[in-house]
Formats: sequence, structure tokens, C-alpha cells
Amino acid sequence: MNIDNFPSKLLENAVTEFAKLPGIGKKTSLRLVLYLLKKEQEDVHRFSDAITRLKDEVKHCLLCHNISDTDVCNICSNNARDKGVVCVVENIRDVMSIENTQQYRGVYHVLGGIISPMDGIGPSDLEIESLLKRVAEGGIREVIFALSTTMEGDSTNFYLFKKLKNSNIRITTLARGVSVGDELEFTDELTLGRSIINRLLYEQILS
Amino acid sequence: MNIDNFPSKLLENAVTEFAKLPGIGKKTSLRLVLYLLKKEQEDVHRFSDAITRLKDEVKHCLLCHNISDTDVCNICSNNARDKGVVCVVENIRDVMSIENTQQYRGVYHVLGGIISPMDGIGPSDLEIESLLKRVAEGGIREVIFALSTTMEGDSTNFYLFKKLKNSNIRITTLARGVSVGDELEFTDELTLGRSIINRLLYEQILS
Repeated sequence: MNIDNFPSKLLENAVTEFAKLPGIGKKTSLRLVLYLLKKEQEDVHRFSDAITRLKDEVKHCLLCHNISDTDVCNICSNNARDKGVVCVVENIRDVMSIENTQQYRGVYHVLGGIISPMDGIGPSDLEIESLLKRVAEGGIREVIFALSTTMEGDSTNFYLFKKLKNSNIRITTLARGVSVGDELEFTDELTLGRSIINRLLYEQILS
Repeated sequence: MNIDNFPSKLLENAVTEFAKLPGIGKKTSLRLVLYLLKKEQEDVHRFSDAITRLKDEVKHCLLCHNISDTDVCNICSNNARDKGVVCVVENIRDVMSIENTQQYRGVYHVLGGIISPMDGIGPSDLEIESLLKRVAEGGIREVIFALSTTMEGDSTNFYLFKKLKNSNIRITTLARGVSVGDELEFTDELTLGRSIINRLLYEQILS
């Protein structure tokens, strides 16, 4: 079915907005919007408020740049976590993936992406300076690279390695139990948990 | 990946709300919410405003009960449409499907569902009384049943037929080019267009 001839401009607007989301076509969008239209007004407001409040009120942790409801996130402010070990990840989902393994007691540093010249993303677009600053301030014994094992992830690892290798800290990376070419978020928890326990010196995988 | 351990309550709320939509799991929900979080604040507000405005401001046409931005919808208020022919459909999407065929010049009556004892939906939950009232007021020469060719659709057709058969109007139904057991909205436009041109007297398919 083609979707034109909307009986209502309000309906058309809502469908157009939903269809901007990734993986949501016009038809799915119409289905979702009509579903919402059948719900109670209160439920619809709860839905849209949750989205706008997230955008308006969420913060990024001043230390690790993970999203957070407070200035410093739950992980960075947890005294049981080892502040001397920093796991470098691409995004928020990767933090959630590693937290779910319950194998890691250090803290994180969220880059907000990886170096990807094809997409015009260079080192200055990522939270790399702030990582180097954290390391330079001292107290960090080890940095773990936990980026996707793609070409972009490897390039980013290598860039960080060059910047950090004279810092007198251990530089490790996830054990290559993670299949090469896979996105981190699709790795099963068992493999991911093992690979953070059996992490390797970064130099070991350079050969 | 399991999704617990949200780094932010605001994020968790937004993901929970999105995951209430049909066909959207927790993981897809997280992907959509993080996509929105990366957009400009203005874009996110446009998204949530479109949803709430639809819910708060949309109307149902006083005549045909299709959704509308005005008291009487564009179709019912269009002088080029034949008010003597009323096509009875289950929902808004069915109106859009038939409008897309560009084969129909009459008006509609949106029941808002079909009779389905399994789901606890009886005649009084649907816009049936208002249909009988429209017919009783006169001026209608023909009522076309365009419900899904499922058991529930057939039951609803038969219920309406019993109520309307003494009204001295033509009662027709879509030509059975529509495959039996199919939902109307998934029927291709060509078949649907032909089936409304070649509509049959309802009595012809009762045998």
C-alpha cells in the first residue's frame, strides 16, 4: 500500500516524524502512530515526555563521558570500582554490554565514536584529549582498548597507542575471542566476559 | 545482549516507553532512543510534539468517524463525492487503502473495529448505530461492505446485513478478488481497485 492521502495533517506529521527513525518505514510508522492514537492521552504524554526529558535533562559524566543523570556517573562515583583501570569504549551501548558481563571492576572512557576518515570523523571529534588528560593527571595504571575489531576500531586503537605508549602505563586490549569484523554490541556475554578477563598487552597483537 | 544496568534513569524510561510499541523490542528501542539522543534538541521536540499534538488535537469526522483535522472530514465535505454511496470499513488505514486505488467516488463509514467475541468486541463497541442512523435519515442508495474477509469480517457483514436489509437500499460487498483470509490493508492496489468496481450484491455471496 502506498501512503499518501492522509485524512489528517496531524496524522501525516506524526507518521513523517516516526519514519525518520532508522529502520522505520512509512508503513511501520503509520502502524505505530495509530497504535499510540488508540492509547489513553496519559500514556501518549508519558511516551513523549520520556523522550523530551531524556534529551533535555540527561548529562554526560564529567570524567568518563558516559550518559548520566548526575554530573559524575554511577560507575565513576562508585568507591568499589578501581579508578586505576580505564576501559576505552566507543559508545554508551558498549558500556552497557561490558557491565552486563559483571566481569569488570574498573571504570570507563567513552570516546563517542571511532576514527573513521570515510565518515569525516577524526581524533578531534572524539573524547581523546580528555582521555590523555586523565592519564596525564596520574593514578591510572592501565588502559584497556575495547573498541570494535573493525578497521576503524584498529586504527583508533593504534592512534591511542601511539599517544599513550610513553605514559608508563599498561596498555591492553580485549582478548581476541571477539570475532574479527564483528561489532562489539552483538558479541555474546560469555565471549565478551572472557575476553576482558584474558585481555592482552596491546603489543602482543601488533605483530 | 541483555539490557539492564542503564547508566541513566531518564534513558531507561525512554527505552521502556518505546519498547511498549508493537513489534519494538528492548534492543531496537535502545537503538531508536540513542539515535534520538544524538539529534538536535529541536528535532527531538518536533518528534514528540507531533505525537502529542496528534493525540490532543485530532478529531473524528462527525459523519463517517474517520480521523480528521476538522469536524467534518475532507472526504465528507467534498462536493465531488457521491454522498449516496457509503463504504463501510473497519479502520482509518482501510480508508487510506481504498483512497489510494483512486477508484471510489463515494463516502465512507469507519466502524472502528469489527465484531469479535473473542476480543470482547460487540456491535455496541462499534459505530454501527450511527451507520443505521445515517441510512435511516435517507439519501443513501447503496452501502458497500469493505471489511476484511476473515470470520470476524464476515460476521460483521452479516450482522449489518440483517440490520439493513429492510431499508430498501442496495447492499453490496467488495468483489471476492480479495483473497479469503487476508487482511484488507495488505491487499495490492490493483486487486483492491478492481474489487470495488466489480462489487457484488451481498446476497450473491451468501450461498
